[in-house]
Order: sequence, then C-alpha cells, then structure tokens
Amino acid sequence: MDKRTTYCGLVTTDFVGQEVTLSGWVQKRRDLGGLIFIDLRDREGAVQIVFNPDESKEALAIAENVRGEYVITIKGKVVERAAAQVNTKIKTGAVEVLASSIEVLNAAKTPPFYIEDGVDVSDDLRLKYRYLDLRRPEMSNIIRKRHDIKRAVRNTLDDLGFLDIETPMLNKSTPEGARDYLVPSRVHPGHFYALPQSPQLNKQLLMAAGFDKYYQIVRCFRDEDLRGDRQPEFTQIDIETSFQSAEEIQTMTESLLKAVVKEAKGIDIPTPFPRMEYDEAMARYGSDKPDVRFGLELVDVADVVAESDFKVFTQAIEMGGQVKAINIVGGGAAYSRKQIDAMGEFVKIYGSKGLAWVKVEEGELKGPIAKFFDATKQAELIAKLDGHVGDMFVFVADKASVVAASLGALRGKVAKEMNLINEDELAFLWVVNWPLFEYDEEENRFVAAHHPFTMPNEEDVALLDTKPEAVYAQAYDVVLNGYELGGGSLRIYDSAIQAKMFKALGFTEEEARAQFGFLMDAFEYGTPPHGGIALGLDRVVMLLTGRDNIRDTIAFPKTGRASDPMTQAPSAVSAKQLAELQLDITEKAE
Amino acid sequence: MDKRTTYCGLVTTDFVGQEVTLSGWVQKRRDLGGLIFIDLRDREGAVQIVFNPDESKEALAIAENVRGEYVITIKGKVVERAAAQVNTKIKTGAVEVLASSIEVLNAAKTPPFYIEDGVDVSDDLRLKYRYLDLRRPEMSNIIRKRHDIKRAVRNTLDDLGFLDIETPMLNKSTPEGARDYLVPSRVHPGHFYALPQSPQLNKQLLMAAGFDKYYQIVRCFRDEDLRGDRQPEFTQIDIETSFQSAEEIQTMTESLLKAVVKEAKGIDIPTPFPRMEYDEAMARYGSDKPDVRFGLELVDVADVVAESDFKVFTQAIEMGGQVKAINIVGGGAAYSRKQIDAMGEFVKIYGSKGLAWVKVEEGELKGPIAKFFDATKQAELIAKLDGHVGDMFVFVADKASVVAASLGALRGKVAKEMNLINEDELAFLWVVNWPLFEYDEEENRFVAAHHPFTMPNEEDVALLDTKPEAVYAQAYDVVLNGYELGGGSLRIYDSAIQAKMFKALGFTEEEARAQFGFLMDAFEYGTPPHGGIALGLDRVVMLLTGRDNIRDTIAFPKTGRASDPMTQAPSAVSAKQLAELQLDITEKAE
Repeated sequence: MDKRTTYCGLVTTDFVGQEVTLSGWVQKRRDLGGLIFIDLRDREGAVQIVFNPDESKEALAIAENVRGEYVITIKGKVVERAAAQVNTKIKTGAVEVLASSIEVLNAAKTPPFYIEDGVDVSDDLRLKYRYLDLRRPEMSNIIRKRHDIKRAVRNTLDDLGFLDIETPMLNKSTPEGARDYLVPSRVHPGHFYALPQSPQLNKQLLMAAGFDKYYQIVRCFRDEDLRGDRQPEFTQIDIETSFQSAEEIQTMTESLLKAVVKEAKGIDIPTPFPRMEYDEAMARYGSDKPDVRFGLELVDVADVVAESDFKVFTQAIEMGGQVKAINIVGGGAAYSRKQIDAMGEFVKIYGSKGLAWVKVEEGELKGPIAKFFDATKQAELIAKLDGHVGDMFVFVADKASVVAASLGALRGKVAKEMNLINEDELAFLWVVNWPLFEYDEEENRFVAAHHPFTMPNEEDVALLDTKPEAVYAQAYDVVLNGYELGGGSLRIYDSAIQAKMFKALGFTEEEARAQFGFLMDAFEYGTPPHGGIALGLDRVVMLLTGRDNIRDTIAFPKTGRASDPMTQAPSAVSAKQLAELQLDITEKAE
Repeated sequence: MDKRTTYCGLVTTDFVGQEVTLSGWVQKRRDLGGLIFIDLRDREGAVQIVFNPDESKEALAIAENVRGEYVITIKGKVVERAAAQVNTKIKTGAVEVLASSIEVLNAAKTPPFYIEDGVDVSDDLRLKYRYLDLRRPEMSNIIRKRHDIKRAVRNTLDDLGFLDIETPMLNKSTPEGARDYLVPSRVHPGHFYALPQSPQLNKQLLMAAGFDKYYQIVRCFRDEDLRGDRQPEFTQIDIETSFQSAEEIQTMTESLLKAVVKEAKGIDIPTPFPRMEYDEAMARYGSDKPDVRFGLELVDVADVVAESDFKVFTQAIEMGGQVKAINIVGGGAAYSRKQIDAMGEFVKIYGSKGLAWVKVEEGELKGPIAKFFDATKQAELIAKLDGHVGDMFVFVADKASVVAASLGALRGKVAKEMNLINEDELAFLWVVNWPLFEYDEEENRFVAAHHPFTMPNEEDVALLDTKPEAVYAQAYDVVLNGYELGGGSLRIYDSAIQAKMFKALGFTEEEARAQFGFLMDAFEYGTPPHGGIALGLDRVVMLLTGRDNIRDTIAFPKTGRASDPMTQAPSAVSAKQLAELQLDITEKAE
C-alpha cells in the first residue's frame, strides 16, 4: 500500500468524507469500550485514528498489539468528531480517521523518555538518543525554524547579488586566533591541514578574485575549552564585499537581520540599529556586547569618592584604577543582607576583590561604607547616581578591566533577579570603533582584538609602530540582547599596512611571510578595498527561538567534553590508520 | 567618493547621458592621439573608459600611470560611441565613459599569466595564483553557475517540503568504505574524530527522528589516491526521505535535475529517464555508468566462436570467461594497423591480454584472426554484429570483469576518435537493480557495492546468509553521459536484516555492535522505512559547464597530491600543537 496521501498533522475538516493514507508514529493508544484510539504523529502534528469492529475487525486486532512509537501506516475515512469531542487545542482536533486497515512498519521498544515537550531528562541521555529527543515537537520546531532562517538569509543575499561560494575545509594551520583542529595528511606525512576557524583568508582572496559579493553558510571549528554556548563546530553566516564602506556593510546586515526576524518571529524590527562606540559600551555597560533592554548603567564616581576616607576607593584611584557604581533602583528592599553577600561572591568570579554597597534612605546613605562619606559626599553620590529612597548603590573599585567585567556581569544578574528584562524585546545594537589590539597578559604581547586582517582607522595607521594600544579599527559588532551575533570589519588590502600589523603582533618578517605570504602576494596583484561580517547562525537561531544554549539549535551537537554520547566519537582508531598517517600516540596519552 | 553606482559590465545605452561611478580592474590600457582608453572590468564585464584633456587633465595624468590589473574608481559621463566604433561583441560595446576623475585604489604587478580565457598555463601556477585564475571570465562564470545550480537545488527541494539540516563534520571513524580523514582530539588524547565520507548515518537518524524529508549541500571527504575527477574534499547534494518507494525517490530526483539543467542551460530535459538494469548495462556497455549517446555496444559472440580453431577464444570460454566484440562501423577505413596496435595496448590497461580484430570486406572477414573462422562462422559473426563492408570488429576474450572493463573503456575511446558523440546531448539514465555486494579480491571478502545500509530486494533477504553474490539491492544510480552523477537506495531499517548484512561483510557481532550499535538501537525505537540519494555537486557543475575536471568547479581545489600550492597546505605544525594532541610523528615521517 502507498504510504501517505497527506501528513497526519494536516488532516483538517477539509478532508471530511475522504479516504486518506497516513504514516507516522503512535503517540498514544487508548482502549475504550471495544474501540481503540491512536494519536498518530508525523512531522506536521498528530491526528486521532479510531479502530472499531464495524470498520475492520482485522485492523482492530492488529491495533491491539501496537505500542507507543510504533511506526504504522493506516488507511481510513476522515469524519467529523461529535461536537463534545472536538479538541480545539490542535489543528486536527475537529476530525478523526476511521481506520479500515493498518500496517505495522516497525515496532518500538519503550523509549527512555517521553516523546513530548518539557521532559526533564539529562543532557547526556538526550544526546545518546538524539533521534528520540528530536522527535519532541519543541526540538523539531527549532530545527525547522533553523531551515526557515537559513532560507531567509539565502533569499535576501541572493537578491542582493551575493554569490554563495564554497571554501575549503582542509586549510593551512595559522598561529593566530584560537586553537586549530588539525587533520594529519597521509600523502605528506608529518604535515597537517587545519579545519577553518573561519574562511577569513579565503573570502578575502575571493574579493581579490573579483567576485565582489560573497556569502556562505559555513561550518567553522575551534578547539577551545567549551562553555555553555560554545561547540567545537559551529555555523557561520559569512559575508564579504568589495568597494563598500563599513556603513554600507552594516546597512546590508540590518536588512538581512530584518528579513531573518520577520521569517522567524513575524515581526518587523526597526532599522537602522543604534550605534555605540566601543569605549562608551565599556564605560556605561562594562561590556562590549551590552544588553540595552534595561538600565543599571555603570556610573564613574571616582571624582566624588577620591577625597573620601574609604581606602579601598582612594587606593584604587591612586593606582590608576576606577571606582564605578550601579544604582539598583528599588534594590534597597529587594535585596537582603545575605543576597548582597552573594553578590559580593559573584563579582569575585570576575576578579574583583569585593563589592561595596549602600542603601538610600531619607536624605542619607545607610550601610557598611556610608560612614566614610560626609553628608556633602553622600548628597553628591545620590545626585550622581540619581538615587531615591529605597534604591541601593553597589560599587566596585579596581583596575578598569575588572570593574567593567564585575559590574557588567552583575547588572545582567540583577536585571534577571529584579525582572527588569522584557523577554519579547529584541534590542539590536552596533558596537563600533573598536581598539585594533588588546594586550594579552599571559603572552605578554598585543593580540588582534578581531583578527590580524582588520583595517586600522586611517588616521591611526602612523601609530601602529609606536603606540599600538591607541590604534582604533574599522570594526563593528552587531549585538542582540547582550549576545554578540557577529562581528566584521574593513580589511587591510595594502601589503605595507599588513606588514606593520604583523610586526605589531610580534611576527618577524620571515614568520609573516611563511604564514601569510600568499595574502601579501595577493595584495600586490590588485586586491580591491573590501570588508565583511560573520554572524553566528547557531546563536541567531538560539535567540530567535528563545533558547539559552546553542546545543538545542544543532541537530547533532557535542557535549561539553566535545564528545558524542550516541556514536561515542571521538574514538580509538586502528593501528593501520595511525601507521598510514605515520603518527604515534605518546605514552602519556596511552 | 562612493565607489560604484553600477557594475562596469552593465553600462549599456540605457545609461547614455548619465554620470556613473565605476570600480574595477584595468583589463587593458591604450594611448592614442593624446587620449587614454581603459577597458575597466568587474564581475559583470568590461566597459571602455576614455580619458581626454578636455574632460580632466588631472584624471588623464593619473591614468597615464595606471597598468593592467590596477584597481581604480572612475567617475564620468556615459556617451554613445560613434557607429564605426561600436563593438557588437560585448554588452557595453555601444557606449564609453568620459572620465572626469579617477582614483587608484590599489596598484598591481604584472600578473604571471594573462587575465583572459583560454590561457595556456600549468595547473600548479593557476592554483598558486588562484585569485588571478578566478578573475578569468571562463572560471568566474563556472563559480557563478555553481551558485545558480545550488540555488535551483534548494528552491526545488524547499518547495517539495525538504528541510535543510546540518550534520556534524566531526564524526566517528568507521571501518567500511574509503579511507577516513582523521582529526585528533585534544580533550580525549589518543582518540580521533573522522571527517564524513557522507552524512549517511546522520541522515538515516534524521529519518528516525521523524523529519521525513531531509537535504543538505554538504562537504564530504575521502582520503583516497586522487584521480582526475577526484578531490580530497567534495560537495554532495544529500537527500533522504521516509515512507517513499525507490520510484518516488527517482521521480523526485528527476524533477530536481530537470530544474538544475533548466537553470544551467535553459533547456527542458525529458523525464522520466530511461531505466536500465545493472546486469544489462554491464552486458551491453561493459560499464555500470554507460554513456548511451552512441552505440558501439558489446555483443556476446561466444556461441559463434566456441567451436572455432582460435584457442584464445575457446580457452577463455572453457575457463568460464567471455568473448565479446564491438562492431566499429566504418572502422575498417578509419583505423590504420598502427592505430589498431595502439588499441591493443589501450585495453591492456584494463587487464586484457590483447585485442583481436577483423575487418569486414565483401562477403568475408579479413585480418589476423579471420583464418580461424570458416565461411559459415564468418557469416554468422557478420550477422550477429550487423556488419557491413568497411566495418571493423574488435574482440576481447577473458573473464567477464576484464571483458567489460576493456571493451567498456574502448568504446568510449573509439566514440571520441570517430566523433560519434553529440556534445550537446544530455543522456540521463537510471541504472537499477544492483548487486548488493561485490567481491574484493584483495581483502578476500564481500564488500558492499554501495554501502552496508542498502536494503536487499525483499525476495533475496534469505540468500544473505547463504549466497551473498546472488543478492540484489534496492539501489539506483543516476548516470549522465557516462558519469555517475549520484547513487541511492532504500535503506535497511530492521535490526535483524542489518545484523545479517554486517555478518555477510565479515563483522563479528561485537564489532558490528561497537561500530554501529547506535544505528541498531535506533532501529529498535521506531525507525520508519526510508531511502535517499546523494548527487555529486562538483560533477553536476562540471558536466553542465562543459568541463572535464571537477577542479575547475571548485574555488580553491587541491592538486593531485592533495596540496594547495597557494597556502602550502598541508604544512608542518608546532611542537606545542602536537604536544597538546599527545601525538608524535614517527621517525620515518620525520
């Protein structure tokens, strides 16, 4: 028998009176008064099938042996349900199918968890039986939404004249950036390919080749220690254009995200997005990807407290650090002493030595550090932080990076705790004018804030040799609700500037040549000015489907230990495979 | 100045009288009577720019220093060319742009080869400067056509309800099939991921998950010794469906290829494609991917020659082999003795000991082996091969596989030499009903003709244990002009049949469990009947753009030695990288 005339989930009253063939999974079976009711599920939803002896004794007998998750095909007639039996919660709730025949295509053991939304199961069990986890509607809907989002991306970019061009997965390993995944070469023993962290150089070469507008939805890899929203492999919407300004690239990105949000949530987001300078973002939000759905901004109070008797503050200032505060409006009543202590522990994660606090009462501050400030200072603080009775001020005094990290993280925590976030709001934002470098204290050298191919601001080029920390870049990140959706920049296309850049990063000329000679060569043969952006698809899908982990947006993700509980990858391989690659596993690993 | 109001290649008479801004590459510069003419090229084509002192002395002075492949932006007014100057060969040939300003965005050294079609350059040089090679219109057009083809694939499949779902690149290494590319794990030292040879098991699990219709345009990897049309990484149009018959999957594939050909070549191909059984293809064409654009079919002449005095033939038959012939119509005059000797050498490549031949003259055969056949036998051969005066018969006598390989290859060679192929024809074909296994003489065991997940024909399942060589499969390949475009099958979804299959392939139960336990598990939890197909995108693009090597269809391909002359990948990596992976390179490799 043919297996399907329509999907289960599409059988509405339009089908009443028709003979249908349906195939799917048994969601539920109930036996009632000599009849059997089966909810039959496929990817479009479920419909009720009724087996009764008048229709077919044979089908009824087979249906008796059917269990949950059995795969069956049924034929039957669609009829309207009696008014009292209509289920308004599902699309097919006004009908049922009277089965005249049934075929069992595959049996099923009892699954290790219920195939329904909101099950409370460990992540490991979900991943081990991912094919069952993905049967749950909330999961399959994310995967379908991901398809829709990709389609919107492609349609938008195709219509704008972008070309989808594939770049290699087997590349050369380069020393900058995150750790590469390596692929040993059998043909060239002792040599390795690297999986791409991004197709950065390839897309720049495509601009040198004259393709003008490139995009790719492409897999990228980073062998980093994994965090909640990281995966060893992730997918990037990768874009590069020639002859365009940073503003043109940003405008194109906005139209792309507008189309994506329209597709995913059916709403029109306003464009252009607000622009904020990197320095301002760090000053006001303590973050280069600020969540601007709520206030709780950082306020510099150094000028007020510099002359106070509180040594923690004055010493921080003397050592070139900062003292900043957040006014938690209404926090005075909201937070108990114990909760405030917990806040103090929380900021220590970010390197802070502790949290100072006061509560605003009628005309004065109360709390452990209030005594260090006379009435004038207290009034100044209240004015500066726009305090009112019932508010609470929290302070961190430390070097700038610690103040930003501590208070930046704390404001997110407080916003959640005090329910200040409108979960329906999509607060898009450009963070622009980034520093070109950041100082890596571990490696004791400058590293690229974005990557070594980022174009410095024209007026800062002269500082590359002398004062790298003062060089700003033509770089921009697009931020949504406190998450970095993507980052881009104009690129260097002049070999002299690129050489200066490599030098500032600590490369010798020979090292730069050995690693990036082909790029410097390309700059000598007519490379146009170019720039682009890369957006994290997994994160876009995560935020637009209301999840908090990109694992849920990937059909077959890895665990936090970069393994797959289903297939047991990674695994040991045969001695023959290793011999062909001329590799040994070191004793320590064995 | 803004960099572009339109593309160079789009400046037609529609623009006459307008001020335009154009950016691109200097294709050619000519100085003539105090004027400078520049052909300015971008991805859409080239247009002539004229610099004259009346328009701008300053621009003229700058233009004097411009060389080929410089990147420039010009502003100017579009004017009609005088009738005598119109170039009808290009879209922009009726106009030119009088430049009022010019900006040099980047200079260029003289490229190592001309940026134009049909250059005679070594593949290595082209790959070393791939960004220049891709500037040549014939190359950039292929990349653009590839984009168009992918778009047609996506649109067709999206409209049919298929979901584009991404599968992992970091998988488990499995022993069947080609050699895996391995990726060492740092988190699990001594363990490895494998890059996918195809997402076969993942797509089957997606069917178990209920997605019903899956596709992906996906990168795949095989670490095999490379041939002309192989690359270490290649791209597959990967498709899987549930509850569909083999015929339904074939029909869907036909509609997909119809849309692709329409997009690529603007023509409608007839569907359904002809179906040919595997056994018939081997018998008539000596190939499982026959080129049916021409005749030269293989004819079994064993019954005629079995009783002859020609020992080469009779012994082959006695040893269970075959004697087959091809009638090369008109070959008698077309082929000299020397050329026929070369044919004999050619078939030796395919394991044949030599080629026998005769020419058809008036009522008799002439040639070295004619004497072994009396007049009756000669007449029978002429009749069987439909010979006419001027034809030539070529024979191979050997075991069946050698006869097929030799004559199958020879018919392709002869068809080219005798100009029998209509290069405009697209001869699509399904080869169906494949053997499930082939015997691997090196490994001395059966291996899967497609892969170990292919469903045997229902009536042959019983033979799996007893007579594997007699088991046929529900497998199908789609063939175009002698190339395999793709292959597919219905899959096993029953763990008992899958277990028999693994056993026939020589796996112990424990080995099968260790490697494929998760798949067997999935079959126990309600996996639906399913099947699919995978098409080689690179090959589709190659055939539809008239190339003979998939390298030309890939933006950044590898050489025959799996290396990239541009980036020098694969390369040595640092001791630190190896130490983190706990790997040593064996002494031999060092």
